[in-house]
Amino acid sequence: MNIGHHRWAIAEGYLPEGSTGEGPELASHETLCVLNTGERDAELAITVYFSDREPVGPYRALVPARRTHHLRFNDLRNPEPIPVGVDFASLIEASEPIVVQHTRLDSRQAALGIMTTLAFPC
Amino acid sequence: MNIGHHRWAIAEGYLPEGSTGEGPELASHETLCVLNTGERDAELAITVYFSDREPVGPYRALVPARRTHHLRFNDLRNPEPIPVGVDFASLIEASEPIVVQHTRLDSRQAALGIMTTLAFPC
Amino acid sequence: MNIGHHRWAIAEGYLPEGSTGEGPELASHETLCVLNTGERDAELAITVYFSDREPVGPYRALVPARRTHHLRFNDLRNPEPIPVGVDFASLIEASEPIVVQHTRLDSRQAALGIMTTLAFPC
Amino acid sequence: MNIGHHRWAIAEGYLPEGSTGEGPELASHETLCVLNTGERDAELAITVYFSDREPVGPYRALVPARRTHHLRFNDLRNPEPIPVGVDFASLIEASEPIVVQHTRLDSRQAALGIMTTLAFPC
Repeated sequence: MNIGHHRWAIAEGYLPEGSTGEGPELASHETLCVLNTGERDAELAITVYFSDREPVGPYRALVPARRTHHLRFNDLRNPEPIPVGVDFASLIEASEPIVVQHTRLDSRQAALGIMTTLAFPC
Repeated sequence: MNIGHHRWAIAEGYLPEGSTGEGPELASHETLCVLNTGERDAELAITVYFSDREPVGPYRALVPARRTHHLRFNDLRNPEPIPVGVDFASLIEASEPIVVQHTRLDSRQAALGIMTTLAFPC
Repeated sequence: MNIGHHRWAIAEGYLPEGSTGEGPELASHETLCVLNTGERDAELAITVYFSDREPVGPYRALVPARRTHHLRFNDLRNPEPIPVGVDFASLIEASEPIVVQHTRLDSRQAALGIMTTLAFPC
Repeated sequence: MNIGHHRWAIAEGYLPEGSTGEGPELASHETLCVLNTGERDAELAITVYFSDREPVGPYRALVPARRTHHLRFNDLRNPEPIPVGVDFASLIEASEPIVVQHTRLDSRQAALGIMTTLAFPC
């Protein structure tokens, strides 16, 4: 099954500064959820856009065949970490068709907020 | 009225571990909301994808003609329950055109968070 | 400007039972947000689907030319109110092209949760 | 890369009245997130629709080439501020193809709620 698109855009991006609650599950984070239903591994190239400087990337990631990968923007390290408290956006390009959904968990205040949306296939 | 698609994908999936509040309404859960506006019952086959093992399924469900069905991933039992605290994704295939929306209620902390998005028609 | 579609579906629907906070703004509610950018009034016919009985409707509403209308499902009265604590879904048909977004505010617990998604154009 | 559409609609809009928490990051707000992946600056013309009066606009904004711009509706001043506690909607027209996502942070109660959705390309 070849499901999805090779390119997706996410215009929203923000890593909240600070968290309440314990453990990585409750830490404030922003996630790129990718589904690869196909029979070949999908190589991702992620470009991160900012409001006041040139884009950074590509960040590389792999989503194996018939797998999902929920990648936290907070964990990206190479070529450089994404700073917290800064507006960004992202473009995801894949060697195979994938489906992309974007989620944030914000636990800066005493009880978490969550949000999600389908990314934009383009 | 034949509204929707036969196949939908949801790249995000996660059953939060733990809840605050009483009763099933406030328990942390993740829901597949399906609308069948047609005149024939829709048989669903749901495949669940993981990050580190082969997909599981199909899970079977029925959405009768002119009905909506809000199915909690937490309640899936056959072929096996979906573990809590684990990343997953899903593919929904239906015998009739349907519309699919994905919702999570997370009550791990003292006040709930909710999120929703249209699934991806494919 | 003729922007949007004549028909939209929302597979999710649920009026939370109970609220914290004061005033209608903080009461738990679910909203159908409609934008009519055109030069003619749009007449809406809303059909509400349930999990265990026949659909109810049409509910009638009007979105004047060049106006938005944020209609709470909680306020629908004719042909009958939508019960709280019950799963539903909806189909919105309009005499003119419109854009539809679906939002819920849930204040059952001590701090509100909110969610939103584009409806499905069909 | 010419990614996106020249016109997007957002049927939901509401600036919550009041906030808890300190600083602009935690103030209740509603944001228009725009991504311009192209090589030319994108000039935006935003029209704001209300439920009971004529649309207001255009509000002007610029998204430089290869940049994202997260614009708070709360900060719009010209031709006039958007009142808090009032339903609105918006239409975004751009000189270059862009991608648009809509986000709200609501901190009226003791812990924030957040929501997001892709806007409607039209």
